[in-house]
Amino acid sequence: MMQFGKIAVIGAGNVAYTLCNVLKSKEMSPCCVLVRNEAEAEKLRQKFNVNVVSDYEKVLESDFLIIAVNDDSIAEVASHLIDYKGLAVHTSGTKSSELLNRIERYGVFYPLQTMSKDREISFDEVPLLIYANSPEDLIRLRGFALQLSSKVKYCDDEQRQAIHLAAVFVSNFTNVILGIGGKVLKDNNLPLSIMEPLVKEMIEKSFKNSPENALTGPARRGDMATIQAHEEMLSNHPKEQEIYKILTNYILENYHKNEKL
Amino acid sequence: MMQFGKIAVIGAGNVAYTLCNVLKSKEMSPCCVLVRNEAEAEKLRQKFNVNVVSDYEKVLESDFLIIAVNDDSIAEVASHLIDYKGLAVHTSGTKSSELLNRIERYGVFYPLQTMSKDREISFDEVPLLIYANSPEDLIRLRGFALQLSSKVKYCDDEQRQAIHLAAVFVSNFTNVILGIGGKVLKDNNLPLSIMEPLVKEMIEKSFKNSPENALTGPARRGDMATIQAHEEMLSNHPKEQEIYKILTNYILENYHKNEKL
Repeated sequence: MMQFGKIAVIGAGNVAYTLCNVLKSKEMSPCCVLVRNEAEAEKLRQKFNVNVVSDYEKVLESDFLIIAVNDDSIAEVASHLIDYKGLAVHTSGTKSSELLNRIERYGVFYPLQTMSKDREISFDEVPLLIYANSPEDLIRLRGFALQLSSKVKYCDDEQRQAIHLAAVFVSNFTNVILGIGGKVLKDNNLPLSIMEPLVKEMIEKSFKNSPENALTGPARRGDMATIQAHEEMLSNHPKEQEIYKILTNYILENYHKNEKL
Repeated sequence: MMQFGKIAVIGAGNVAYTLCNVLKSKEMSPCCVLVRNEAEAEKLRQKFNVNVVSDYEKVLESDFLIIAVNDDSIAEVASHLIDYKGLAVHTSGTKSSELLNRIERYGVFYPLQTMSKDREISFDEVPLLIYANSPEDLIRLRGFALQLSSKVKYCDDEQRQAIHLAAVFVSNFTNVILGIGGKVLKDNNLPLSIMEPLVKEMIEKSFKNSPENALTGPARRGDMATIQAHEEMLSNHPKEQEIYKILTNYILENYHKNEKL
């Protein structure tokens, strides 16, 4: 467990919070967390009983550093770490590992999960996508990651960026589609919660078979009468109607099967 | 349990299959199932050990009839049932109850769930949306539905059609979005299965809070550099790129919060 020596974290956002929580649960709490905002620092101190610092001095003494700041701040943070002797990784799904290349030993540690401060999640099943600029550090990073999750995967920048793009589809876009469903229901004084069993069963089915095999509905059947009725029902919501049309056409063009039951 | 007397089912598709299975599990197996296709009839006989018939004679003797055929066949089926004395319901999310109005006692029994022959599901938590053309039959239908699920809800045609439209968004469109994520991953020799923990956590979060509160990602942050990189990555997939753009713009216009972590 101590092969990494002292672990430090930079950041006070959703990823930093979740990391502090996961590390604490594995008795690997960081030696320090660097946070610039004093209010956020105090919250972290109270929540995780960790040593929260406001300058880089302590961080430079660590052996392993997880830079869990937002994408646009990574370069600025890295500029303070040019003399860092440990292994520094960022946690971004989309930013190049090369943002850290002025540090001698660097890499990426990208947990493929949506994280929020108010949800305590386990990393046990979360894919941890790792990269390091030397084989030795890749082995070390892998050893660290395997203590947190059974799903550790080597990924270069290009693969990680493709995964991040796919994640935007399956997470963010799925989310916004759920929101539109909720809006249609709200117009009729109905709660989104009635959709929970349907959504969960569809997700189960999609991963068990494949999304293509799990697909049902009017576009899949080529049921143009229902499609037209739906488009008319959305006439007061032109943006949502446009999304309905483009996704329906996509299904009609790619997945329409003329199955008669 | 016997307040309905003899239950009959018409159909051999996903809904009819699932109904036979659910009714059997509650020891309420139908007295007969009407199926026109002989191959399908034989499958149903073997699977559920029920009396499968090919004409309307036996069906007319039942007390409660569930017409679980595809939407376009409901009217034709109803034309054979003008003398039916029991309560006849269809199971469509989208078709008017009035398709059955030449039958004396009619209604709708719409299970809000995606169903497949190869997945045995329970109705315990499935919303059952019911309608009947008389208060007495509505009470009977409610009693029946409550034996299958704890979530029984009265719905007129208009509400049911709104629910069906919402279901197309949260189920079919979510499904096709997962498929696009899978396509992006496949291009990079990666399996969709790595997305399962992310998708499931996002779904949990969306129903626990709301989709709006659960939304993260580049469009939510207004991260135009990542959005542009994603669009370029999709340049070989113009249809998927178009979907990326429209959903990203929808988020930018409706949900963009300039949160700095």
